[in-house]
Amino acid sequence: MTYCVALKLDQGLVFMSDTRTNAGLDNISTFRKMFSWSDGKSCAVTLLAAGNLATTQSVVSHIEERMKAPAERAPSILTLPSMFQVARMLGQLLKDVIAEHAESGQRADAAFNASLIVGGQIKGSEPRLFLIYPEGNFIEAGEDTPWFQIGEVKYGRPILVRTFQPEMSFAEAAKLLYVSFDSTIKANLSVGLPLDMQIYKAGGFSPGAIRRIEADDETYLAISEMWSQALKDSFAHLPEVEV
Amino acid sequence: MTYCVALKLDQGLVFMSDTRTNAGLDNISTFRKMFSWSDGKSCAVTLLAAGNLATTQSVVSHIEERMKAPAERAPSILTLPSMFQVARMLGQLLKDVIAEHAESGQRADAAFNASLIVGGQIKGSEPRLFLIYPEGNFIEAGEDTPWFQIGEVKYGRPILVRTFQPEMSFAEAAKLLYVSFDSTIKANLSVGLPLDMQIYKAGGFSPGAIRRIEADDETYLAISEMWSQALKDSFAHLPEVEV
Repeated sequence: MTYCVALKLDQGLVFMSDTRTNAGLDNISTFRKMFSWSDGKSCAVTLLAAGNLATTQSVVSHIEERMKAPAERAPSILTLPSMFQVARMLGQLLKDVIAEHAESGQRADAAFNASLIVGGQIKGSEPRLFLIYPEGNFIEAGEDTPWFQIGEVKYGRPILVRTFQPEMSFAEAAKLLYVSFDSTIKANLSVGLPLDMQIYKAGGFSPGAIRRIEADDETYLAISEMWSQALKDSFAHLPEVEV
Repeated sequence: MTYCVALKLDQGLVFMSDTRTNAGLDNISTFRKMFSWSDGKSCAVTLLAAGNLATTQSVVSHIEERMKAPAERAPSILTLPSMFQVARMLGQLLKDVIAEHAESGQRADAAFNASLIVGGQIKGSEPRLFLIYPEGNFIEAGEDTPWFQIGEVKYGRPILVRTFQPEMSFAEAAKLLYVSFDSTIKANLSVGLPLDMQIYKAGGFSPGAIRRIEADDETYLAISEMWSQALKDSFAHLPEVEV
């Protein structure tokens, strides 16, 4: 499993992903699930991937190959005119990669499915955020729900629903993601530290560095501990039920 | 979907279940998922059911028919010598009911699977709690995890993990279940009010009345509102993350 979240704030975009992959409980590894491309002046795109690792790595490799030899394998992700076209291209690519393995050769036990979140900005329009399904179609984050999750979405969802505001600062958004990931990691063994976080400031056209939050990160541990204590305290202060 | 929880406290057992059933999003109904039997002096058994409604209703009807005509259809649930035997009998019954429909006639789109929680006490031993799988096998609640959930278990699990203590009073346990159900109901449309709650006091051999918590229940609404506010306040008091 995997857990990835992307938030669309008034100030820009924030992405977070875990790094645990597993093929069975006894075969876990650490792989990056966050990928960024930018030309530094007019285009910045970040991708989060959940699902079959062979599928998502193949999608990323296809994107990178196209960038290295754009003359042969157009279109490159950085030459597309809009984020909508980026989402279309990724949707088609994802569908093709899944179909390639699903419909030929040996049958696998599980489907080769994967889901993607892609966000970014191309000069001339605002930052945009899309969720791409294994079937290749996609939805865009709007005003009512300006964030997406993929992977193990349930445990970390309630805090997002209750506290997310588009006006949040990047620091508050990072705190929200820490809590959302902490709830998920505590409940599901297949989501694990370290985490990757990236902040994209609207109009910057260069994604910030991907920050890695290790298992011994002091801020992460402090927030995890304080949140746990706050929940217990809050529960203790609720009125009792007459029985 | 469904959400049911049973807690094994030092003082006895507490059961809670929702009442929403659905066959698709456009076909929802209200059905009881909690059933109790007792002879008032040496045996009290409570059953919670999640899964295919035809399956779980059939299991309950079989139990009740056996009690009405015990001479013909032994064993009755109230004449078994231990809760272990009750769980064995229910497991076999559940497996038979599922197999009856799964392996003959038309194929349904979905499996006829169901899971059960059964708890209670038979004179001569302590209260015991079992989770029964569709395959008919089962596990018993022990010291480390003296509670079971079935149905939509994820949203309501974190608060159980963090705050459950076997020494809790019935009033505290009821409060815990209110919060756990509130989190689930807020996140999943297929779990809904009203709720049913039952408290079994160890050594009583007669289950308390099933209390129905309606959508306008004042205590439930107050706890829901206060919990929501407490989460927001706790979140606001966490330290910010430097970005």
